[in-house]
Amino acid sequence: MQPFRAFIEKYQKLSEPEWEEIKSCLMQKTYPKGELILESGKICSKLYFIEKGFLRYYLWKDGNDVTKFFTEAPYCFTSQRSFTNNIPAQENIVATTEAVIWEMNKTDAFQLLKYQNWSEFIRKLIQEVQFFTEQILEEIQNHTAEERYIKMLEENNPILTQAALKDIASYLGIAPQSLSRIRKKYWSKKQKLT
Amino acid sequence: MQPFRAFIEKYQKLSEPEWEEIKSCLMQKTYPKGELILESGKICSKLYFIEKGFLRYYLWKDGNDVTKFFTEAPYCFTSQRSFTNNIPAQENIVATTEAVIWEMNKTDAFQLLKYQNWSEFIRKLIQEVQFFTEQILEEIQNHTAEERYIKMLEENNPILTQAALKDIASYLGIAPQSLSRIRKKYWSKKQKLT
Repeated sequence: MQPFRAFIEKYQKLSEPEWEEIKSCLMQKTYPKGELILESGKICSKLYFIEKGFLRYYLWKDGNDVTKFFTEAPYCFTSQRSFTNNIPAQENIVATTEAVIWEMNKTDAFQLLKYQNWSEFIRKLIQEVQFFTEQILEEIQNHTAEERYIKMLEENNPILTQAALKDIASYLGIAPQSLSRIRKKYWSKKQKLT
Repeated sequence: MQPFRAFIEKYQKLSEPEWEEIKSCLMQKTYPKGELILESGKICSKLYFIEKGFLRYYLWKDGNDVTKFFTEAPYCFTSQRSFTNNIPAQENIVATTEAVIWEMNKTDAFQLLKYQNWSEFIRKLIQEVQFFTEQILEEIQNHTAEERYIKMLEENNPILTQAALKDIASYLGIAPQSLSRIRKKYWSKKQKLT
């Protein structure tokens, strides 16, 4: 099955004609490692599906690159605020590995909402993104950077292997040196236990 | 116009029969100040609309009451994760003032999704909630508690008049004493400027 169809159908089953119409709106593109998919300041007019690869979202703050979050394939993404309200995006989205991406124009994405199943899929997807955002917010509100990093390690979070250390530190809101200290402490504790 | 209809129609126009069916699913209730609308550990099976009043969402963490966020009328709310996945809610929702609330059962809220306009309203609402959550996350990731409090003051945020100082401090992730210091510093600076 086409990976985007398989992804949609984890949320909502599609009929053959629905899938045919969705498929006709998709265009595949491969982004090399390090290439920007979305640049801050530009209006995001596409809905994307990442079939293969890993993404990093970041902002510029006082000349510094601040990591907001990461997305692992397979998943849908866009700059929701820019896409919905037709305003310049605040974030940059970069492929941290070579990425296979399917793109759909905004006009098509909206026009497909006439299909109950596509509309349900979009609703469930936005809701899931909302859960993820709420979860990150809760973690930041209730846990230290060290606790959050240890959780990543214990959950074998793909961020650990796919993202650069300086970006993980930025995502945790700490300096790379602090992350090094946390890592050192964690592994020496582990060693003592074994 | 009934306030909930007016609220829905800010997002999506309704036909008369649609509104009649939505209306038939609503029940009004008044919660006195301080009363819990949702208690953590219980499953949230209702979609709520707050017509009048102010709400505070909080979690229990190590025996402490930690404020997550606030909602001002008129707005829709629920415990999204508990409501959608039928799992116990993590948060408590309390009326910080007397609150006039309209409630709708989950079964009704889902059954109404057969109406394109209700379904569109729900999609746009979840998207807006996602924007708000993302905005809070961005503020926490990029700004200090002091910067966030000053922004509240400069925007005349209703939280300032509707919420207790200790809850605002908890929302900002700082001790009430630190908030007092920030307030003192801000107002003495303002005084010097006038």
